[in-house]
Amino acid sequence: MSTPTIQVTLVQLDNYGPWTVTPEPRRETDLQSLQARLFADVSRQVGTGGGYVFHSRFDNMIAVTNGLDDEDHAAIQRTVRNQYPVTVSLSVATSDTPAAALELASERLQRVGSAQDSNREEALVGDSLDDEARTVEDVTVAHFDVDDFTSRYTDRVDAFDAHMSVTTAYATLMRYLYRECDALSFFVGGDNIVSICPSAETANFQDAIQHVIAETGIELKVGIGRGRTAHEAGMSAKHALEECRANGTRIERALATAHGD
Amino acid sequence: MSTPTIQVTLVQLDNYGPWTVTPEPRRETDLQSLQARLFADVSRQVGTGGGYVFHSRFDNMIAVTNGLDDEDHAAIQRTVRNQYPVTVSLSVATSDTPAAALELASERLQRVGSAQDSNREEALVGDSLDDEARTVEDVTVAHFDVDDFTSRYTDRVDAFDAHMSVTTAYATLMRYLYRECDALSFFVGGDNIVSICPSAETANFQDAIQHVIAETGIELKVGIGRGRTAHEAGMSAKHALEECRANGTRIERALATAHGD
Amino acid sequence: MSTPTIQVTLVQLDNYGPWTVTPEPRRETDLQSLQARLFADVSRQVGTGGGYVFHSRFDNMIAVTNGLDDEDHAAIQRTVRNQYPVTVSLSVATSDTPAAALELASERLQRVGSAQDSNREEALVGDSLDDEARTVEDVTVAHFDVDDFTSRYTDRVDAFDAHMSVTTAYATLMRYLYRECDALSFFVGGDNIVSICPSAETANFQDAIQHVIAETGIELKVGIGRGRTAHEAGMSAKHALEECRANGTRIERALATAHGD
Amino acid sequence: MSTPTIQVTLVQLDNYGPWTVTPEPRRETDLQSLQARLFADVSRQVGTGGGYVFHSRFDNMIAVTNGLDDEDHAAIQRTVRNQYPVTVSLSVATSDTPAAALELASERLQRVGSAQDSNREEALVGDSLDDEARTVEDVTVAHFDVDDFTSRYTDRVDAFDAHMSVTTAYATLMRYLYRECDALSFFVGGDNIVSICPSAETANFQDAIQHVIAETGIELKVGIGRGRTAHEAGMSAKHALEECRANGTRIERALATAHGD
Repeated sequence: MSTPTIQVTLVQLDNYGPWTVTPEPRRETDLQSLQARLFADVSRQVGTGGGYVFHSRFDNMIAVTNGLDDEDHAAIQRTVRNQYPVTVSLSVATSDTPAAALELASERLQRVGSAQDSNREEALVGDSLDDEARTVEDVTVAHFDVDDFTSRYTDRVDAFDAHMSVTTAYATLMRYLYRECDALSFFVGGDNIVSICPSAETANFQDAIQHVIAETGIELKVGIGRGRTAHEAGMSAKHALEECRANGTRIERALATAHGD
Repeated sequence: MSTPTIQVTLVQLDNYGPWTVTPEPRRETDLQSLQARLFADVSRQVGTGGGYVFHSRFDNMIAVTNGLDDEDHAAIQRTVRNQYPVTVSLSVATSDTPAAALELASERLQRVGSAQDSNREEALVGDSLDDEARTVEDVTVAHFDVDDFTSRYTDRVDAFDAHMSVTTAYATLMRYLYRECDALSFFVGGDNIVSICPSAETANFQDAIQHVIAETGIELKVGIGRGRTAHEAGMSAKHALEECRANGTRIERALATAHGD
Repeated sequence: MSTPTIQVTLVQLDNYGPWTVTPEPRRETDLQSLQARLFADVSRQVGTGGGYVFHSRFDNMIAVTNGLDDEDHAAIQRTVRNQYPVTVSLSVATSDTPAAALELASERLQRVGSAQDSNREEALVGDSLDDEARTVEDVTVAHFDVDDFTSRYTDRVDAFDAHMSVTTAYATLMRYLYRECDALSFFVGGDNIVSICPSAETANFQDAIQHVIAETGIELKVGIGRGRTAHEAGMSAKHALEECRANGTRIERALATAHGD
Repeated sequence: MSTPTIQVTLVQLDNYGPWTVTPEPRRETDLQSLQARLFADVSRQVGTGGGYVFHSRFDNMIAVTNGLDDEDHAAIQRTVRNQYPVTVSLSVATSDTPAAALELASERLQRVGSAQDSNREEALVGDSLDDEARTVEDVTVAHFDVDDFTSRYTDRVDAFDAHMSVTTAYATLMRYLYRECDALSFFVGGDNIVSICPSAETANFQDAIQHVIAETGIELKVGIGRGRTAHEAGMSAKHALEECRANGTRIERALATAHGD
């Protein structure tokens, strides 16, 4: 049996830092709006091909792009160029773990120039997976949320307390899963965290959840799914998380790929 | 001399969690896109009135709204209702510290119903500051970034390492400034953190920076500004941060309000 | 009694034509998307101040801006510059008729350079009304639609037939009201046409409707409102049009300014 | 040789008219913004598949969708549902002329319910072309613009004069090409008109241009292209129009499909 292969794309705004303060610092709400809209657009476009993109630092976004080829990547660059005052460089890499793929993508982009090199514009480096090499187990998504977050936090503590709880739980889980199983985890809003994992077996989700409880007191549950694309794996994971909710369990694995949309 | 007064608004999506999984879990990239666009729009609208809004958990956004009155708040609700498949409730409160104002705003909103109460829709509670009570020292913004982040991190380590560094530095600073001086701090993209502080004097920024270095090894610098609105204070803070860059210093306070846009 | 004064702003994209074909013709759907989003944003921003903007040719938009001052205009330019790959020039003028105001605004902009002069960027010319000179009768809006359009057209004829009918009715009304009463009329979607008129008395709406029936066979009805801003006048006109619908009449004038939002 | 087959999709907002006035008429600038953004999004999504969409009346958009299958159409519905307060119904049809295809699509949609039937929501009717039936000559696009529009109009006459000239030229050309050759023509901004034609031979472009000069005095030129998709045909047409500009000619036909993006 072949090893699952994850394809990751690093999306980096070209020379963005200098742009935000030239000729004068730009209005913060305009920058917030620009970053959010650009992420929303990239998310829509990556999502059309079955991928996921995470805002990460907004000027550096991280995408899982199994199913997107070179042309799809070039189309993302074109769309940004035609709609925004900034451009993006893209670096694609594949490996057997998300962390390894992103490391390779990062190195490839660094090799063609600095993020603040005004001569590096719209770099597109790396290779996407051949279609025949892809399998239905390439992507594993673990979708976490906090047990009863609304009744325990949102409706009870103040909004910054809730914000700090989620941020702390996320930071703790993120580091643990990266260290223990080369997974890349991202906060996706509300009380939701999405992890891109090497495989459902490798990651010891029981330990991860225990670690977060021990460090922060916050109780997570998780649904796990696999698929040819981030969307397929993620949709399975969402359904598995609904199973947790229905069954009162902490961990559920989807048996098969979900086909919702 | 009167005490500075900060006005904070809690922006909460109504019954959003259930909506995201009804009748089936919705596609993740659509949710990401929706959340980001809604934040971008609220940011533009709050920004027009001189305020700042932070995405926080996306379904609960936190805004500094000195300068926005009840009508401006109602206009935000109307815009969301007319453009999105979801609605928002707003709770406004004022106090002498950002943390106290947000605590009060949170309580007010909790009192009128749960975030997942399908009968609570478009609540608008609390009061905004009378114009005559406002002063040029009402809002203090501290704008932090990481020294030489691009050359030390973005261009050198891999993108998740950079992401973890910023997330960890942010989480550490956020907790410290909340505990020590009732400030609310938010990650705003790149390597930038914006703190809404009670006053420039209260916060011991030297200690905060030292604390982050000690805990994480990451070296921050900070520009501090004050103003009638978040925008005025924030623009002063950005200019002060440029001073840090020019002078090689760690902390700069703006002497007067900036008037850039 | 003072004469009503209308304030009009011409919004012109700078050097847009050449940009659309440089270095190669850009993808049409990207251009369509860019133009529509830029219009949507300008509409939101002009609307916040109580104004109306019409897409006209998209690269030249026409706005009624009673209530927006120089700073509001500069904010529109700033927002476009910070969010889009193109910039806009603005020319503001006031007069006693919409046509005269736009003529003046056009001349002012032409005087500072060609629409395709690569050296003319972000021009901002003209003057806005002093607040004390403004009255509650400055803006008159006539909001037209077609009687029973859905049952007679949309649900019966094919979609291009319906499109041609509306386009022809609009073109006929537009020319008539311009020639007869210096009004500026715009198609705003569906079967709706909005006319900015010098005053409710000047325009002979009965004749206008008869003219359109005679030329095209299409039966319009109209609600007419006045106000300090396009929004106030337009909202009154919408309510008056609802009166037509309720009463089975062709023309209704709002007695007083509506205060909906 | 097989006949070219055009695939057309009618995009109709469900029960939109009543929504715009319920419970009260909604603010016009919000409606303008909503319509424009929804069109921008549909344009981006249709464009990803190689199609074109025209805003037409905004609540009824007309698309050329060769290359988009049922799943692509369902994805458009899903995106709108997840991002907007309104939903869309879609009707797809194919035929040998654009007019015939749209007529069929219109009938199909009318058969499943009125545009203002509150029970008809997200209808998806009709069939898309099998991939093997498609040819490189399926779509013919004629892209018109006005000779020297900027120097003759934009920089010389006032902005409403320019608006009326383009509107009148468009209305005249639209009716002529529909009557003479079953083409569907749309104004796409600036001084540009795009016609979807049955074939490059059928349409007598010389006569069409003469007709517009005779009726309106406005001199058009046109580039004509063909392709498997609207995008391919349209990009060829744009290049052909650039040939007109370079050669001082009125009509240019692209010899082969363009492959720009």
